[in-house]
Amino acid sequence: MIPPLIIAAVLRERASIIAFAEVIAFCFLLGAGGIILKADFSKVYAKEGYVTVALAWIVLSAVGALPYTLSGSIPNYIDALFECISGFTTTGATTLTDIEALPRSMQYWRCFTNWLGGMGVLIFIIAVMPRSAGSGTGLHIMKAESPGPSVGKLVPKMRSNARILYGIYVVMTAVMTGLLIIFRMPVFDAVCISFGTAGTGGISVLSDSCASYTAEQQVIITVFMILFGISFSLYFLLLTGNLKAFFRDEETLTYLAIIAVSTLTIMFDLRRLYPHPEEALLKSVFHVGSIISSSGFTTTDYNLWPEFSKAVIIILMFIGACAGSTGGGLKVSRVIILFKSARLAIRKMIHPQSVKQMRISGKPISGEVARGVRVYIGIYSIIFAISLLLISVDNLDFTTNFTAVSAALNNVAPGLGDVGPSGNFAGYSAISKLVLSADMLIGRLEIFPVLLLFSPTTWRKAR
Amino acid sequence: MIPPLIIAAVLRERASIIAFAEVIAFCFLLGAGGIILKADFSKVYAKEGYVTVALAWIVLSAVGALPYTLSGSIPNYIDALFECISGFTTTGATTLTDIEALPRSMQYWRCFTNWLGGMGVLIFIIAVMPRSAGSGTGLHIMKAESPGPSVGKLVPKMRSNARILYGIYVVMTAVMTGLLIIFRMPVFDAVCISFGTAGTGGISVLSDSCASYTAEQQVIITVFMILFGISFSLYFLLLTGNLKAFFRDEETLTYLAIIAVSTLTIMFDLRRLYPHPEEALLKSVFHVGSIISSSGFTTTDYNLWPEFSKAVIIILMFIGACAGSTGGGLKVSRVIILFKSARLAIRKMIHPQSVKQMRISGKPISGEVARGVRVYIGIYSIIFAISLLLISVDNLDFTTNFTAVSAALNNVAPGLGDVGPSGNFAGYSAISKLVLSADMLIGRLEIFPVLLLFSPTTWRKAR
Repeated sequence: MIPPLIIAAVLRERASIIAFAEVIAFCFLLGAGGIILKADFSKVYAKEGYVTVALAWIVLSAVGALPYTLSGSIPNYIDALFECISGFTTTGATTLTDIEALPRSMQYWRCFTNWLGGMGVLIFIIAVMPRSAGSGTGLHIMKAESPGPSVGKLVPKMRSNARILYGIYVVMTAVMTGLLIIFRMPVFDAVCISFGTAGTGGISVLSDSCASYTAEQQVIITVFMILFGISFSLYFLLLTGNLKAFFRDEETLTYLAIIAVSTLTIMFDLRRLYPHPEEALLKSVFHVGSIISSSGFTTTDYNLWPEFSKAVIIILMFIGACAGSTGGGLKVSRVIILFKSARLAIRKMIHPQSVKQMRISGKPISGEVARGVRVYIGIYSIIFAISLLLISVDNLDFTTNFTAVSAALNNVAPGLGDVGPSGNFAGYSAISKLVLSADMLIGRLEIFPVLLLFSPTTWRKAR
Repeated sequence: MIPPLIIAAVLRERASIIAFAEVIAFCFLLGAGGIILKADFSKVYAKEGYVTVALAWIVLSAVGALPYTLSGSIPNYIDALFECISGFTTTGATTLTDIEALPRSMQYWRCFTNWLGGMGVLIFIIAVMPRSAGSGTGLHIMKAESPGPSVGKLVPKMRSNARILYGIYVVMTAVMTGLLIIFRMPVFDAVCISFGTAGTGGISVLSDSCASYTAEQQVIITVFMILFGISFSLYFLLLTGNLKAFFRDEETLTYLAIIAVSTLTIMFDLRRLYPHPEEALLKSVFHVGSIISSSGFTTTDYNLWPEFSKAVIIILMFIGACAGSTGGGLKVSRVIILFKSARLAIRKMIHPQSVKQMRISGKPISGEVARGVRVYIGIYSIIFAISLLLISVDNLDFTTNFTAVSAALNNVAPGLGDVGPSGNFAGYSAISKLVLSADMLIGRLEIFPVLLLFSPTTWRKAR
């Protein structure tokens, strides 16, 4: 909170100065308390790891929401909490109607939470969900059967990995900011938009998101939204000069192919709405890139598009970005495994003796991983249905409710209907906002940590 | 087609007499051709079984649609085909706006296809998808790994099983018809409504479905809709006096519990719309029973209900009835396995060494069955997304498109929006109607037979 405090001090935003200073002081007390009351942390298993992560995100969000309320920018604490969870989970959903009315320091804080959230996701990937850096499949997750990492062993490797990932993240953000400034975006906007893009959160400093930026600026944003949706382990491989691995990675190629096909079909569908092909192309690729990477920036209200384009948008929400990126959604690799599972099942009906192995990027995928993906999608569906039911109580229409849950669970942000690009989440009751906040966390932390947190058996004394 | 021909003859519906007579003659020729060109059928494996079933349903529907077009009742053949597939798959979706304008013989034919389709599903269960009659879990399906049944062995057992199931089916339909007549429903209506209920198809002889029937008649329909959604193997057990198995069957109990809870919550949600508690209860239980059993009869336009009730309706569509009934949807047992899979996965994260076995009705469920269910739901989701995309081209709104696919794939019939109780599927283009027809077949035949039919490897010569 020091950067926004500095901005508030420079711009003399009094309420914000006090709010940030108070919360920083509070954090020091909290931290001091944590050090004094240090828990016995000698043995950390998977369970403890997951629960720690889930709790950390909740505590961070609860504290991160305080400046909004203390400064009076978002008087209602539930709204502030929603805003902050939306920021840290890189969702970008908001209940605010007039972004421009916020003090600059608060605008900065919103975008900065996006950026920090993206960092959190990267560390989450390597620390809690171990994956072999070079595999490229991005799906060596959820190895629940292996005993959790012991702190002693993990820390050194984790630190070096984290340093590399953070380095890539910071450099890419800086390059983007530089490019935007070169193409004449105001510095404050350039920094904030780059934060929102890097975290694939899509929080902007303008109420119209990115509509008032120039075409060149929109192109830069599009390119980086797509880049931040690619697994960071591939950038690591690029750094080591392994170009082949990058261009042979099946997940990345599928991701880019989906973007290309979706862009062309939407462009064709929009031919009457935007007679200029360049305009149709830019509108199409911007929103395809924004939605599949789960950024959620917009340059127009796609509620007004034909239904086919909207259906593509909705399906892209679910597909999401590549595993190991800052993007959300189911992840392209999970969708690939789902399709390959289906093909394998059909093949097995035709040739019962078939022992064909599932492969991604030529590497075999174990039955255990495929099973994990299907269980994941199953639990995801259950959570989706329950959330839909709960927020339907507010009596908003089905399209709004369906896409609100989808936008939250996939960390995208805008949905359709009332929660579309020109709308926001203010129409929901406090309870629904909490449900959607939980969905954002569940989606961001890949379900299990949050579920473990609420499972009674987690809190029972070990036998 | 002989019963509707007789009705047409008695009521002197000339166009219908000619149409049915022509198609009957055509069927004789087709059958004679089939006998002469008899294929070598000595070895039938799973693949051949599935493909035969899928082809049979398509050919039957193509022929069954002819009377509609030849008589001029449904001049457009695509609409007639949609109507007939909807009938045989016990979906009940229609493109017709004025049911009362149809000749009686055609009304009868519509409802009769529902009843025949229900029979087809029962034989499908025992012939193509073997299940041990007494297990009660209803999910010993898709044993693709075992070599297909050889005709010689299967026929005797299949015949005796089919006779029992058909017996139960006919007696239950007759009891329902009798009860409806006792409660003063016109005989023609009573017969047709019983056909629609038995097949859980929900085709009615009135444009308002069941709205103009008396409360007593609606109660009878409700009870039988729910009964026809229970596995027929359980009725077989009841016949053998095994009451315990019936009342301990986890799928049936879950099915009844879902009905009870949904009814009460919808009733509460409708308290302002229907101030009389009895009316709210009847409206609520009728539609809950109708949707979960995938019948699709209605007594009011639930489009006008609050969103929460509509969300419950949509979720019930997906859950569907019990496996081994004439009902559609995912089936309660699949949903149970999905939930138990999720619980097991969470437990495994907390206790990695846990070797807890999944059980339904106290009997262990093999990993293979649970895997099959998850693959099924995965493929189901893919088909859902593709269908949604395809029919969105017609530019109807998202709620209509989403529930149209759901209504077709789950064999329910009415959706929400334009395809709601007071609407129909006439707003869709011919291509969309074919997509939805395919969905109805895919849903009815539990996906695999239809997919195999369209898989290129199916048609390759065996190695």
